[in-house]
Amino acid sequence: MISRPASPSVRSADDYRDTIEQLLRPLAARSVDTVPVAEALGRQLAADTHAPIDLPVFRNSAMDGYAVRAQDVAVTPVVLPSTGVVAAGDPGLERLAPGTARKVMTGAPVPVGADCVIPVEDTTADADTVRITRGRAAGEFVREPGSDVRTGTELVPAGTTLAPRHIAACAAAGLARLPVFAPVRAVVISTGDELVAAGSTLRPGQIYNSNGIALAAALTANGITVVGVEHSGDDLSQFRRLLHSATAAADLVITTGGVSKGDFEVVREVLIPLGGDFGSIAMQPGGPQGLTVVDGVPVLSFPGNPVSAVVSFEVLARPILRRLAGLGPVPEYELPLLGAVHRSPEGRRQFLRGKLVWKGSRPHAVEVVSGPGSHLVASMAAADVLIDIPAAVTELPAGATVRVWTL
Amino acid sequence: MISRPASPSVRSADDYRDTIEQLLRPLAARSVDTVPVAEALGRQLAADTHAPIDLPVFRNSAMDGYAVRAQDVAVTPVVLPSTGVVAAGDPGLERLAPGTARKVMTGAPVPVGADCVIPVEDTTADADTVRITRGRAAGEFVREPGSDVRTGTELVPAGTTLAPRHIAACAAAGLARLPVFAPVRAVVISTGDELVAAGSTLRPGQIYNSNGIALAAALTANGITVVGVEHSGDDLSQFRRLLHSATAAADLVITTGGVSKGDFEVVREVLIPLGGDFGSIAMQPGGPQGLTVVDGVPVLSFPGNPVSAVVSFEVLARPILRRLAGLGPVPEYELPLLGAVHRSPEGRRQFLRGKLVWKGSRPHAVEVVSGPGSHLVASMAAADVLIDIPAAVTELPAGATVRVWTL
Repeated sequence: MISRPASPSVRSADDYRDTIEQLLRPLAARSVDTVPVAEALGRQLAADTHAPIDLPVFRNSAMDGYAVRAQDVAVTPVVLPSTGVVAAGDPGLERLAPGTARKVMTGAPVPVGADCVIPVEDTTADADTVRITRGRAAGEFVREPGSDVRTGTELVPAGTTLAPRHIAACAAAGLARLPVFAPVRAVVISTGDELVAAGSTLRPGQIYNSNGIALAAALTANGITVVGVEHSGDDLSQFRRLLHSATAAADLVITTGGVSKGDFEVVREVLIPLGGDFGSIAMQPGGPQGLTVVDGVPVLSFPGNPVSAVVSFEVLARPILRRLAGLGPVPEYELPLLGAVHRSPEGRRQFLRGKLVWKGSRPHAVEVVSGPGSHLVASMAAADVLIDIPAAVTELPAGATVRVWTL
Repeated sequence: MISRPASPSVRSADDYRDTIEQLLRPLAARSVDTVPVAEALGRQLAADTHAPIDLPVFRNSAMDGYAVRAQDVAVTPVVLPSTGVVAAGDPGLERLAPGTARKVMTGAPVPVGADCVIPVEDTTADADTVRITRGRAAGEFVREPGSDVRTGTELVPAGTTLAPRHIAACAAAGLARLPVFAPVRAVVISTGDELVAAGSTLRPGQIYNSNGIALAAALTANGITVVGVEHSGDDLSQFRRLLHSATAAADLVITTGGVSKGDFEVVREVLIPLGGDFGSIAMQPGGPQGLTVVDGVPVLSFPGNPVSAVVSFEVLARPILRRLAGLGPVPEYELPLLGAVHRSPEGRRQFLRGKLVWKGSRPHAVEVVSGPGSHLVASMAAADVLIDIPAAVTELPAGATVRVWTL
């Protein structure tokens, strides 16, 4: 169960996001899955993992060559009797007699009695002997047990998002399965009688439903598992039914539409009686917002304009969800504006769509690529950042430094 | 079919990677899948996509408010007869008579005859009339058809790796399916009699097989679809059988082990007769390498030491595979070394495992976190970068600037 936010009247974007974060915090302690190591890529490790064995597990050769005693090759060239071959995978248990050599392959056990390996390049062999042209000190080209990691040492700490190198270390230590946090599960419910599915023909007044698909993609891209994408018309009982199905299936529900001041605000009408905190956040787009706990599950209610929905996600949810999923922070830059911003609403933080201008491998400026209108969803495809214009700023000259968030 | 590399004697890491890239280039023209837009996240668009409709598709309201003629509200306050409501989703076909107002919801059609919308905040209404306290100019709060994008305009160019914003634009334009490149399919075959699967008990001389799992994870993390992870003992006919199964199923095969100068080099023994180019690359780890085209499919043969296999992938394959998958370049930095590097082999470019040291949100130095040994796979878990020490450099003082590649 998640409790209600303490204060329902927080209204700057940052304060509102903090309220959302408090509400989502219990999800950090979610349940644990134990998955095969081969399926653990990108999952977040739920417990510290320790090496169950030494690595290397036995003393082995770093080279293809001859195992000898260093003292027997102190003066070179020297010819030694050659006493067989240890291949990788052989037990290699036979002791090496002083004054002899034994061929060993890379990774094969170095016989007891030998203390170094002469690379094959420094040798010539016939059937029974090997001529060694360069000596080696004791220890050279021998990998000692535990020289990589000792039994019981931490391999990967809890909370790590598992990258290929972590998978490699766990597999090398013989760990067959790893404990990882269950993914955060989300359902998206878009609302509005005007929305129809892509592929249908539009009748007058209708538009294609993009919010469900767009938010599902955004959630997925940020490590959240989307378990449902639903659409409700402006019908209270239909929305109510979808809402309770969603809270039964998910850890988080996002709704779009139905939050502003119109006559048919299905989301407000259902959620306010359930304790929903609805109001205006000092940001544009994305001003009207709602936050409710239904059946113990947080429900974020974003506005229905497609750009407002995406910007709400980026600003209010994405940083929190990435932390929950164990992903790194959203990259941010401070960059000069390529052109001027002539008008930004006073008292509201504005997020304009922008595109980075690169110089080699580094961004060195940002340009506005779309108008401020919250319906400009096609134009947003050309953007790769949000430009963050503070609430107090109403215009900016070209060259002014702005903060940008990577989309 | 992919032809053989022109020159089989290329031996610097960069030249060798160029040879691999030429061999893999035909994969850029691979087949096209048409997938539902909701499943296209992260896929690479195979053709330019154009808007099949105007967006907005009809003239609609940017606010909840009243549609009026600007000239009827030029002097305020003014009371106008109120003639119904247009909800989002309504056809909204009834013309607005001069001198009247009609309530419209955000996204609803603005009636013909109206040229602006008065936000509901600037109005008070009773049953049949509305009092308007602030006028608006023609066009205000009205979204014109095509003001976001016009029919036929490019929405997303071919080659784009589809992010949520691209998905949003395509969905809003009603595109139900998108053409995307088929993923590059790879099979990994690790070789060696000494390898056993995680979860089994090790007998003397055996180690756990990590290369297959690690390379499969690395391929997956870089946009490649892994269609098989196999293990072959040092048995020519077993390896040959797995190899031909792999070339039948995949666009690319990676093998590990069996490439150096030992007596049981199954990969060399099978692939050299098939035209394989095997030899030493001037890098450490990862020196011994092989490159063969089998059944028209490129086969990259990496060494079997776990760190060598991963570094081979990172240096020789990853940049190419990311380009093929439409992913951005591997982030690189130039950073000062925190400690000295006392010994690096002359004539070979060395890749040490390192860890970034952060100052706020930017890396400001790098430290070496593991020895140079190619068996130190557990230690590699603590690294997040490779430190690139040029072939001519044999030592570096603390503070020296080095190039690092993000793992």
